[in-house]
Amino acid sequence: MINIVIAGPRGNMGKEAVRMVEKEENFQLKAVVDRKYQGFLMKDVDGMEPLNVPVYENMEICFQEVTCDVLIDLTSPEVGKKHMLIAFNHGVRPVVGTTGFTDQDIEELSKIAEEKKLGAIIAPNFAIGAILLMKFSQMAAKYMKDVEIIEQHHDRKLDAPSGTAVKTAQMISEVREPKTQGHPEESEQLKGARGADYQGMRIHSVRLPGLVAHQEVLFGGEGQSLKLRHDSFNRTSFMPGVKLACETVMKLNVLVYGLDQVIE
Amino acid sequence: MINIVIAGPRGNMGKEAVRMVEKEENFQLKAVVDRKYQGFLMKDVDGMEPLNVPVYENMEICFQEVTCDVLIDLTSPEVGKKHMLIAFNHGVRPVVGTTGFTDQDIEELSKIAEEKKLGAIIAPNFAIGAILLMKFSQMAAKYMKDVEIIEQHHDRKLDAPSGTAVKTAQMISEVREPKTQGHPEESEQLKGARGADYQGMRIHSVRLPGLVAHQEVLFGGEGQSLKLRHDSFNRTSFMPGVKLACETVMKLNVLVYGLDQVIE
Amino acid sequence: MINIVIAGPRGNMGKEAVRMVEKEENFQLKAVVDRKYQGFLMKDVDGMEPLNVPVYENMEICFQEVTCDVLIDLTSPEVGKKHMLIAFNHGVRPVVGTTGFTDQDIEELSKIAEEKKLGAIIAPNFAIGAILLMKFSQMAAKYMKDVEIIEQHHDRKLDAPSGTAVKTAQMISEVREPKTQGHPEESEQLKGARGADYQGMRIHSVRLPGLVAHQEVLFGGEGQSLKLRHDSFNRTSFMPGVKLACETVMKLNVLVYGLDQVIE
Amino acid sequence: MINIVIAGPRGNMGKEAVRMVEKEENFQLKAVVDRKYQGFLMKDVDGMEPLNVPVYENMEICFQEVTCDVLIDLTSPEVGKKHMLIAFNHGVRPVVGTTGFTDQDIEELSKIAEEKKLGAIIAPNFAIGAILLMKFSQMAAKYMKDVEIIEQHHDRKLDAPSGTAVKTAQMISEVREPKTQGHPEESEQLKGARGADYQGMRIHSVRLPGLVAHQEVLFGGEGQSLKLRHDSFNRTSFMPGVKLACETVMKLNVLVYGLDQVIE
Repeated sequence: MINIVIAGPRGNMGKEAVRMVEKEENFQLKAVVDRKYQGFLMKDVDGMEPLNVPVYENMEICFQEVTCDVLIDLTSPEVGKKHMLIAFNHGVRPVVGTTGFTDQDIEELSKIAEEKKLGAIIAPNFAIGAILLMKFSQMAAKYMKDVEIIEQHHDRKLDAPSGTAVKTAQMISEVREPKTQGHPEESEQLKGARGADYQGMRIHSVRLPGLVAHQEVLFGGEGQSLKLRHDSFNRTSFMPGVKLACETVMKLNVLVYGLDQVIE
Repeated sequence: MINIVIAGPRGNMGKEAVRMVEKEENFQLKAVVDRKYQGFLMKDVDGMEPLNVPVYENMEICFQEVTCDVLIDLTSPEVGKKHMLIAFNHGVRPVVGTTGFTDQDIEELSKIAEEKKLGAIIAPNFAIGAILLMKFSQMAAKYMKDVEIIEQHHDRKLDAPSGTAVKTAQMISEVREPKTQGHPEESEQLKGARGADYQGMRIHSVRLPGLVAHQEVLFGGEGQSLKLRHDSFNRTSFMPGVKLACETVMKLNVLVYGLDQVIE
Repeated sequence: MINIVIAGPRGNMGKEAVRMVEKEENFQLKAVVDRKYQGFLMKDVDGMEPLNVPVYENMEICFQEVTCDVLIDLTSPEVGKKHMLIAFNHGVRPVVGTTGFTDQDIEELSKIAEEKKLGAIIAPNFAIGAILLMKFSQMAAKYMKDVEIIEQHHDRKLDAPSGTAVKTAQMISEVREPKTQGHPEESEQLKGARGADYQGMRIHSVRLPGLVAHQEVLFGGEGQSLKLRHDSFNRTSFMPGVKLACETVMKLNVLVYGLDQVIE
Repeated sequence: MINIVIAGPRGNMGKEAVRMVEKEENFQLKAVVDRKYQGFLMKDVDGMEPLNVPVYENMEICFQEVTCDVLIDLTSPEVGKKHMLIAFNHGVRPVVGTTGFTDQDIEELSKIAEEKKLGAIIAPNFAIGAILLMKFSQMAAKYMKDVEIIEQHHDRKLDAPSGTAVKTAQMISEVREPKTQGHPEESEQLKGARGADYQGMRIHSVRLPGLVAHQEVLFGGEGQSLKLRHDSFNRTSFMPGVKLACETVMKLNVLVYGLDQVIE
């Protein structure tokens, strides 16, 4: 049985995390940490699940009063770092789902984890299918050097390409010599047709109403192609990754950055 | 039984057409017209099929000597026009697979066809799957206004987007008000990510070794998407369209431009 | 401006329909008909949208008191038929989204619509993308006779194949001679591999957690394939179809069964 | 520079292998071994490439007369084994592309390779994209337990499911507890709809004219799906795998069975 405290239980991710922990047989939700509602039970707070689980405003006091193995932190990067330090002091392993940590932050936190021999996982992305997609893309690029990325999102998205597409291209570029793809003399009759150029790889961003979050990585080689595609339909897609992180962090005694590092 | 003469029997398309006509029970190959080999039988010419079918250099003489219902012309636009005129004079219905006719050419040929009450089909593209894709795209765009085109070809292709992608976009724009898609404030962090802009639709061109010729037309609407995809694996993909044209032209008494016009 | 009354406003479809009508500039929601809450305003009923729109229990009285062009009926088949008869008596055009009408029901209702010269639409499926998929599949089958259907749903679905897959196969079979596909001597090393047989077409049902409702219709021909795919991500996917039906029914003076009949 | 001898140079695979070796800068074709044409040069044999490369009927003599690092053997299993023994005796590393070796054969050959400290690769499948697909499927199945396989081939194929589909299912089952997928109470209204059952996984075989060889492995998890797809368009798709094997075998000093074992 893994005893768990969740920080940020009223956010979108937090709510799903509470449900996931409740549902898992080997997980026990011991408390939640919120900016408000000190001393309440979850069931007495509007918008929380109807559980007999105490709410704390102060994480220090929380860890003094309840037994905890893993902290799931779904707050903000500034708060997340403070929470990690408190967790380490209490022998609690943190699983942190926020982006925005600096390299210096991570270095500092890694040292502490190593000294205390405590596992910790910071994961900017918990969608396990997306993590697998990126990992497999990197592996495939060693053997099939020609690759294009086509990411497809709803049309309320402001940035193009998506963060995941850029991250995928970065991971591929770690194992692939820069290579300009397409015919050396190719030309665009309509500007932009060949997409964005990332070290010679092309990235295409599709935006349409109705779509959610989808990514294809397409490899071409002599007489064949290999397509890897991830479809994310809703926010629950993050929960299997959070669960995996909680299970894995118990076996670690160092800090790991990125869920792709724990997948074999 | 439809009696057929093929002009251009040694080109890639011509060779396939000879095989297709031979294979079809209701088609009878009566002669081929070539720039060379007058008086030979096909079986005596290197690179032609081993058939007891006469070769003519002069189409006029050909039509005087053999009974013919349909001429399949797979030569060049200049030659094609001359051939059509000769065919009309002999009561032969032409099926012509070349691009490059001017609007004036087509108008002129249409008048003759109408006068003679003879069917004729000029088709820049015989790939029936591609024709269906374009036709369905146009129909769907009446009901789903948001659409992007992703075409994928081998990396020896020089132009982007492909001719078929542009033709598809044109056909869609005939039934769709120009509409800028995506978020009004969207921006490209990497230039070109959002593809080429055709009246607000986006077109993306993928080029990879191993690919042949593929096109996706993706429509998005509330809570759903519709994807139409055509894959062309090799040149035989044109033959069902040539066959359909031969059958259809027998029932026509006007000139039709584009195979999409004969599909219901 | 089209004046609209919605029957069944608290069901899943009904709620979405209320939102859709509110959002459309040319639609005006005049009243809703519910089994309860006579005399209330919608905003005073728990679970209804906060609108100053009256609730009626009795449709007869509703149509006496409010001006209405179109009735959107999202109740049950038994109730739906009664509602249609009342609507016809008041010169109101019904758009009905329930299945389960008998052939006799439809014949009877058609006669009344014809006598009164009133349009009416009964549509078992309003997902416009799915309707297009079925219609295009039928059209394509005239030209490409070899086809298999792969439908993919969440793993809580009990029946296989899906109703939409069977309906698609039926529509295809209306234009296609029965034809046994695959090699005449093919055999299954694992039973069921070749899927279900519907007049020689094969249907495959995939069931996986995470999926929603997806269908592919795959046509194969010489050197090419054509794939038509619809993805339904959530219930809002029905609303564009309801909207189209409301607009179309105003121009009709007969009863139409099936949204595919109003798509050109 | 790697010196190469090819056995079976007139088969489909053999012809492609000759072209590949010729094209690669670091590979040198020293000789070919055929059942006929002893003493000829390749350029003097009908159906062989126009190369100044000697043909041998006897592999023993071939290895006595030419310097060779790697033997590419594309003959039959019986002949393949004999060839491997001869190669080992001459310090040549074999790359063998035939199926049908017994477990005993492989054990025996492994021992010899180990004694001689010579690398050897036996690979039933050289399509690197297909190998990657299988490997990734196995990896993904550790994290996403629900999976179905959809393989699609031309309609001249006699067996269903394909060998690759069964191999993929086997590899997945090595890391996945048997699990019956779909709803416990699901039922087939049309027999076979849910496909073949392999330890609870479902396999679907599509057969259509025009298709070549395609496989999708589809994983479903909460709120998401992951699709891995390989398309093989023609026989050249095997050559990157043969090339990789030749490069890799030079660094090995044991026998490896299956190209998936050399991919990291």
